[in-house]
Amino acid sequence: MSDGNGDRSPEASGERRPPAAVPNEQSGWGAHDAVRSAGAPVEVERTDRPVRVAMLAPPWIPIPPPGYGGIEYVLTMLCDALVARGHDVELFCAPGSHSRAKVHPLLPSAHPESIERSLFEADHVAHAFDAIDAAAEVGGPFEIVHDHSGYTALGMARRIDVPLVHTVHGPFDVDTTDFYAHHGAKGGLICISHAQARSAPAEADVAAVIHNPIDVHAWPVGTTKQDYLLWLGRFVPEKGPQRAITVAREAGRPLILAGTVQPRYERFFADEIQPHIDGEQIRFVGEVGGARKQRLFADAFAFLMPITWPEPFGMVMAESLAAGTPVLAFAHGAAPEIVEHGRTGFLVEDEHEMAAVVERAAGIDPMECRRSAERFAPERVAERYEAVHHERARFAAPAGQGPAWAAPRGR
Amino acid sequence: MSDGNGDRSPEASGERRPPAAVPNEQSGWGAHDAVRSAGAPVEVERTDRPVRVAMLAPPWIPIPPPGYGGIEYVLTMLCDALVARGHDVELFCAPGSHSRAKVHPLLPSAHPESIERSLFEADHVAHAFDAIDAAAEVGGPFEIVHDHSGYTALGMARRIDVPLVHTVHGPFDVDTTDFYAHHGAKGGLICISHAQARSAPAEADVAAVIHNPIDVHAWPVGTTKQDYLLWLGRFVPEKGPQRAITVAREAGRPLILAGTVQPRYERFFADEIQPHIDGEQIRFVGEVGGARKQRLFADAFAFLMPITWPEPFGMVMAESLAAGTPVLAFAHGAAPEIVEHGRTGFLVEDEHEMAAVVERAAGIDPMECRRSAERFAPERVAERYEAVHHERARFAAPAGQGPAWAAPRGR
Repeated sequence: MSDGNGDRSPEASGERRPPAAVPNEQSGWGAHDAVRSAGAPVEVERTDRPVRVAMLAPPWIPIPPPGYGGIEYVLTMLCDALVARGHDVELFCAPGSHSRAKVHPLLPSAHPESIERSLFEADHVAHAFDAIDAAAEVGGPFEIVHDHSGYTALGMARRIDVPLVHTVHGPFDVDTTDFYAHHGAKGGLICISHAQARSAPAEADVAAVIHNPIDVHAWPVGTTKQDYLLWLGRFVPEKGPQRAITVAREAGRPLILAGTVQPRYERFFADEIQPHIDGEQIRFVGEVGGARKQRLFADAFAFLMPITWPEPFGMVMAESLAAGTPVLAFAHGAAPEIVEHGRTGFLVEDEHEMAAVVERAAGIDPMECRRSAERFAPERVAERYEAVHHERARFAAPAGQGPAWAAPRGR
Repeated sequence: MSDGNGDRSPEASGERRPPAAVPNEQSGWGAHDAVRSAGAPVEVERTDRPVRVAMLAPPWIPIPPPGYGGIEYVLTMLCDALVARGHDVELFCAPGSHSRAKVHPLLPSAHPESIERSLFEADHVAHAFDAIDAAAEVGGPFEIVHDHSGYTALGMARRIDVPLVHTVHGPFDVDTTDFYAHHGAKGGLICISHAQARSAPAEADVAAVIHNPIDVHAWPVGTTKQDYLLWLGRFVPEKGPQRAITVAREAGRPLILAGTVQPRYERFFADEIQPHIDGEQIRFVGEVGGARKQRLFADAFAFLMPITWPEPFGMVMAESLAAGTPVLAFAHGAAPEIVEHGRTGFLVEDEHEMAAVVERAAGIDPMECRRSAERFAPERVAERYEAVHHERARFAAPAGQGPAWAAPRGR
């Protein structure tokens, strides 16, 4: 599972991302507002081939997510953008959800406390599959199921009469690779980065690589910078807040650390982070969201991403670029496809190399960063999802022959 | 999920029950051995109507369970006994399993650390369903699927071409009732007690009530008793070790407390149990298994079951009876159907009433207890499972009409 960055553990909780946190006059973004207007979304083109999509969200958290919820944040934007393009999207999800898609809550309550508990995932997906069958029985069949809900739906994908595609929100790791090796050709997989796709097992049917969307037009661009470096995320060793401190020290710049400390990482924080926090060079501001988070990004001299694990996407890098802030990243996971070395940031091998390039961030044009983030705009991402739907949907079968996904099961 | 007593949480770990822990000469059970021979299993009758059964175990723990594993212990006995009756049983299970049934391990490893994690349950059940389909394709179709594996298989039961029955190993509680209300008629449910069956949602299809098996003939009967009372289980408030202490104090008898303290209940143990342990009247012997556990049961003056939750079965009560030891139990859950008041123990309302009846246990005949436990013998339980299989299996369809479970799904 994933928070849009490629990891979602039951303990994970993090940055709040309101669905459309556009700074208003009260937030004092006058200078940025002008820039934001310049980057306003283009008119949405409507498709001439609308698809009837069953979008299957996880059962854990409503859409949009009231707090933490990376997959739900992606789904919020994706559903709205697909509906805007003219598609007929029905969203099977946790109760309390709202969307421009038609919402079908399935279970009596959301289960943020029980992420990945099989009872609720099985219940939720079994309900959804029954509803998908029922839609066909009353003459309104879906043409494609787009699954974001975990593992059950993909594992059982050949047991419904509608082709299924599945966005892989987490990494192919020691736990999940075997699952995808065995079941990853039951539906088309959408990987959220080329790096993730390269690590997919050979047996899997990777239909496309589509980066996650962010509400890029809601982000003001910071064209004049303050002097601090920014690190933001969950305080876990592999995301590297301790290395960000080293970078700040070596570069002689202030560092702002933002994000959440989960109970199981309190010891790490106490041992490796807390002793360095002095309120001057190294500052800790806790969890931030909404306009305050956007301002932290927009005003930063550079954003630091000293990760040591293959994060499948890395939402914070896209957010930094949307805010016009260069990203200094270790060349792991999706970083090389999100950051363009020398144009929107720098890719480095370790914290010392990162410290050595910090001052070069002054030469990066904030508007170049913003322009490079436009590819993550929901309408752009939805267009790419649409292409997969067009290719994989039920009506895609060549005339006169049964579609490939409807292989007989021996009933 | 369940430990055979009706609760299995991811944290649960407990009594070790080796599959056939028959005391040998080294364990010094001379006097008991004679009694045990008297209760040896009768010749197993073979069915004249063998059924081809796909038995679906959980993915968490091998069969037989190397340590904790109530469901796996039940499956160990059930598979062997069904094969002994002549049925063609194939067991889909965790790797490392052994059985008289044909064993099909599905995932590369067992996952005792991840009980109820949807990734592994979905992977395991999807594999099993694919194997069940494949068996039909090569001309060896199963006639029934008997599911013990969690929730995914029942939720998806109508998506395979073989009728499914599902043993409900856990309680119908605030978490599970809604699941069974929606999916509990997709297969026949086997409840493990009448008390559990009475709490089933009205929508569920309860096919039968069948108590759990225990390897009763492997238990020596204690015909001469020592003076202590016994409590054995996980140290959790609802199982009542603290009330057992009150009973022992009021009755003026020694108490032996046996079982495991899970991390999340260490505080409870430290506050409410530890202060009372004096090594004389109140003794704590930790986790026990095998011959030592059997001896603790057989030699006890009475076994205490001061539970305050509706435990669906209660394996320890059946074990106590097998060992010839009367059970003093609160009249909750399955206790009234396992304990016969005045003949094999006493059913009471609270710890004070329990203390008041303790001395009456001297009037209970150990052989009466043992005889009442014979109904839990694996061959007896297997006979009842067989009856459900005969009723529900694919060949049960009346000639000339499609079986009820094969309602068209619109493919």
